[in-house]
Amino acid sequence: MYRTHNCGELRISDVGKTVTLSGWVQKTRDKGFMMWIDLRDRYGITQLIFSEEQTDKNLFEKARGLGREFVIQVTGSVIERASKNDKIPTGGVEIEVSELNILNESKLPPFTIENETDGGEELRMKYRYLDLRRTPVQSNIIFRSKVAIETRKYLSEHGFIEVETPNLIKSTPEGARDFIVPSRMNPGQFYALPQSPQTFKQILMVSGLDKYFQIVKCFRDEDLRADRQPEFTQIDCEMSFVEQEDILQTFEGLTRYLFKAARGIDLPAFPRMTYDEAMSLYGSDKPDTRFGMQFVELNDLGKGKGFGVFDNAELVVGICVDGIAAQYSNKDIKKLTEWIQRPQIGAKGLVYVKINEDGSIKSSVGKFFNEEDLRAWADKFNAKPGDMLFVLSGETDKTRKQLNELRLEMGRRLGLMDPNEFKPLWVLDFPLLEWDEESERFHAMHHPFTSPKKQDIPRMLNGDFETMKSLRADAYDLVINGAEIGGGSIRIHDRALQEKNFKLLGFTQEEAEEQFGFLMGAFEYGAPPHGGIAFGFDRLCAIMSGQQSIRDFIAFPKNNQGRDMMIDAPARIAPEQLDELNLDLKILEEVE
Amino acid sequence: MYRTHNCGELRISDVGKTVTLSGWVQKTRDKGFMMWIDLRDRYGITQLIFSEEQTDKNLFEKARGLGREFVIQVTGSVIERASKNDKIPTGGVEIEVSELNILNESKLPPFTIENETDGGEELRMKYRYLDLRRTPVQSNIIFRSKVAIETRKYLSEHGFIEVETPNLIKSTPEGARDFIVPSRMNPGQFYALPQSPQTFKQILMVSGLDKYFQIVKCFRDEDLRADRQPEFTQIDCEMSFVEQEDILQTFEGLTRYLFKAARGIDLPAFPRMTYDEAMSLYGSDKPDTRFGMQFVELNDLGKGKGFGVFDNAELVVGICVDGIAAQYSNKDIKKLTEWIQRPQIGAKGLVYVKINEDGSIKSSVGKFFNEEDLRAWADKFNAKPGDMLFVLSGETDKTRKQLNELRLEMGRRLGLMDPNEFKPLWVLDFPLLEWDEESERFHAMHHPFTSPKKQDIPRMLNGDFETMKSLRADAYDLVINGAEIGGGSIRIHDRALQEKNFKLLGFTQEEAEEQFGFLMGAFEYGAPPHGGIAFGFDRLCAIMSGQQSIRDFIAFPKNNQGRDMMIDAPARIAPEQLDELNLDLKILEEVE
Repeated sequence: MYRTHNCGELRISDVGKTVTLSGWVQKTRDKGFMMWIDLRDRYGITQLIFSEEQTDKNLFEKARGLGREFVIQVTGSVIERASKNDKIPTGGVEIEVSELNILNESKLPPFTIENETDGGEELRMKYRYLDLRRTPVQSNIIFRSKVAIETRKYLSEHGFIEVETPNLIKSTPEGARDFIVPSRMNPGQFYALPQSPQTFKQILMVSGLDKYFQIVKCFRDEDLRADRQPEFTQIDCEMSFVEQEDILQTFEGLTRYLFKAARGIDLPAFPRMTYDEAMSLYGSDKPDTRFGMQFVELNDLGKGKGFGVFDNAELVVGICVDGIAAQYSNKDIKKLTEWIQRPQIGAKGLVYVKINEDGSIKSSVGKFFNEEDLRAWADKFNAKPGDMLFVLSGETDKTRKQLNELRLEMGRRLGLMDPNEFKPLWVLDFPLLEWDEESERFHAMHHPFTSPKKQDIPRMLNGDFETMKSLRADAYDLVINGAEIGGGSIRIHDRALQEKNFKLLGFTQEEAEEQFGFLMGAFEYGAPPHGGIAFGFDRLCAIMSGQQSIRDFIAFPKNNQGRDMMIDAPARIAPEQLDELNLDLKILEEVE
Repeated sequence: MYRTHNCGELRISDVGKTVTLSGWVQKTRDKGFMMWIDLRDRYGITQLIFSEEQTDKNLFEKARGLGREFVIQVTGSVIERASKNDKIPTGGVEIEVSELNILNESKLPPFTIENETDGGEELRMKYRYLDLRRTPVQSNIIFRSKVAIETRKYLSEHGFIEVETPNLIKSTPEGARDFIVPSRMNPGQFYALPQSPQTFKQILMVSGLDKYFQIVKCFRDEDLRADRQPEFTQIDCEMSFVEQEDILQTFEGLTRYLFKAARGIDLPAFPRMTYDEAMSLYGSDKPDTRFGMQFVELNDLGKGKGFGVFDNAELVVGICVDGIAAQYSNKDIKKLTEWIQRPQIGAKGLVYVKINEDGSIKSSVGKFFNEEDLRAWADKFNAKPGDMLFVLSGETDKTRKQLNELRLEMGRRLGLMDPNEFKPLWVLDFPLLEWDEESERFHAMHHPFTSPKKQDIPRMLNGDFETMKSLRADAYDLVINGAEIGGGSIRIHDRALQEKNFKLLGFTQEEAEEQFGFLMGAFEYGAPPHGGIAFGFDRLCAIMSGQQSIRDFIAFPKNNQGRDMMIDAPARIAPEQLDELNLDLKILEEVE
């Protein structure tokens, strides 16, 4: 027994008790005749006091030798503090130490273990065990644990069974790249790590499990963008005998419950919007609805006035930004135009209309549009004096994407994205298929197991190319504050329809059979109608905390090269290991 | 909405309601003018009734066309059953069907979906989705989910935080073989899948997390014995500022709680026994204490009487089996002797002593031992008339192992291993090191991070070879009914001691640094004393259910060749995948 109490629990009511605490030396204040040490553990900080009057001389000297992050055990009496600290729950008391035991020493940490540290990201990744001692990082990890507990509680209470699906499965090179695992016992053969338990959870539905969930690691060997990880965690769910509405209700319930249980927040309504609406109103299938600036299309008013840029555009579309007309100088507008012309966004130009406070109107396209024209624009936007319109034009999809970026940027600049305000939104009726110009084939917008909407099935079975592009799926995303936190669909449960879908996606019959034959086989033995959803758990935790980076919610994240800086993985392995697996390195010289 | 109720919830109080159910056709009984169908889902079975009098003719004909495992949706009235079935909760009612909708058809399943099926193991593995429809299999999976929930509940309530540790880590070829994962982004480098999160959970202790747990997949590329799986699940736990006693208390509490919460069973006391005691009393470090037959050593009484076999043996040791003297004929004894001489066990012979009901004594070694000698043996065993002694001799370790096998066999034959009786036992004070004759080096009995007992540390730092063999560790196993369900240790938290241990285990300094440098580095920055335990979760679920095979508690197990028969993995992968990973197959011809 190294302690009777932890460092977060002693209160004024404990005064007079003899206690033993263990923890880390957070800070020492030495006034010569008196010395205080902040002793830290996961639960809090307790102040230790040493004084010439009360403390044994040797003990005082020993305490004086303690460095930052030493691990110590102390025994002493709880006394009332002369000057209390209201900021921490233990701030009313301190420990008059009578015994001190150094459990372990510490070298000077390479960065300070404080809420605001002086350590850079690389250093903190390498010494992750020290970074994890900092309260903000540790709180994130503890918060994640709490969200997981509450998720399991809600789903269990709603009849879901958690089932572990295998991690050593088969490679299905559709979609993202698989991580593969050579099989020693089956030379020349490989397992793959699952990108998601998709087919297994469908199999569980065929097996009659009715309601499944799993908080589960998934793996994707992708080139990592800033906030992607090669291994990430999903809340993965599937239900039988359900339609889309059942799933939306159930998981709106889960989301509402999690925010309440883990953060004490009552979420507002979950409005619904089709994919088409989301694209035309926000230029995004995950709009941030914490603020307005919905897109207004101007093809009717913008074309036919001799402004060639608009006349030749597929789409003329803009947003109205409230009350900024007075603030945006020509220089500001020029900068904003340059911002939107950067290759990452790629707009050709930016048209603005200022509705000044005095009622006058100023625009970069005044040459082509008279005041009456522009006032008609303003009316269409419901713009008030002081507002400013930004208008883009060009090919529909590209223009919407660019305007989405501009809208988000204006939201950021105007402080409209309060990290503690949460606006959920269901986006529904995603397209079933997505035409990929590069590979000249259809991709599944969600995944190949997604069911087309019932009314679209006849068109799917007999349609032409354009029909295929217009098919809608029973697929849905849950969006909060502009981030997709979950997505799912009703699945195909009929072999013939599944075969048709694989065919549309460019699978040969052999490929479909080899990769997913077991699932199509299962469909022949009484597969129930079913559907599900998966939440990105790392992202959910970050969003719920009003934070951006998923990396801060993963205990041991990898960097952008997929490397664990602490353990230094991946790494070379022994040649015997490769031998046993029947493998050779291809270009040994280059990697030596 | 495919249903208003599930197939397990309608009762006599629901009579008169119009309900909609969905499920699988379990069984049809057709009496011509009347027909009953058992409709099944995860929740139970509800009887449907169709009759010439009440049912629409077309509907009746449609119902008659239903095959086993068809998925249907029916609407109808709940009526009271004429002849009730007391065996199922829904047995008081049936549904008079007015609408029938076939949701999916089913081919005839390759085996019957009944509690006792006619399908062999291979077939059931291939069609796992059908096997999982059988109540005993589905119950196991649901039971597992329940045990996981209760585990998380107990540990969370005791302040443990669940933290996910990474699955893509570094290969450390100590112990079992790693599964490796080639890194595409770091050519020539490899991740490994974790055999356990051991080093990460220790790192979490260094980071001040205080109490960690995780229900986590682990991976070992071992040649599979009957009941091993390449991926398996652990309840993995670690605590800071603890001594062995704290861990035993906490996890005795967990085990007790789980049996109560998941099975309603109050476990008896958890006695404790040292490894040495367990070996000398049972010849095993995981004794089945549901029955007696403790070993009694006979070196004092057995040697020096001219029986060379005993005289030359290192150990003479036996068990006393109650009340079987009258039943074991010479033929039976001969058979038993042959059984124990099989190469799997390898005893040279079997000495018996019968203490007959009439008080007379008969023995296979009567030539060397007179009645007085044998009566002294019997007294040492506390044998009563009717009992029988079996005695083995030879080299200590081997003889104990053989006698352990015999003891278990006699327990089985006499029905002393009641699957619904649970006898827990802590085995303590395991040796730190184990000498391996073959490789002529020490192995860690538990793992290289295990701390020697405090009092043994000085001997460890300065001891000779024999001393090293005698070192004891703060390592403990939790055994129930002869199965190890958990094991753990207090860990080393001091860099110097850890280095010394690696050295004893034959690591060069470079190897130790390369593989575990991050952990030893962490020990230099204020590592607290810590220790932990891991439970084999699959095994725990099986044991708690009074069952043997862990495979029956895994939704998608692999067979003895590490193969998933349903999805047919592992499998060949596309040559482009190998190319991307910089790999070649070594002996392509042989595996083509």
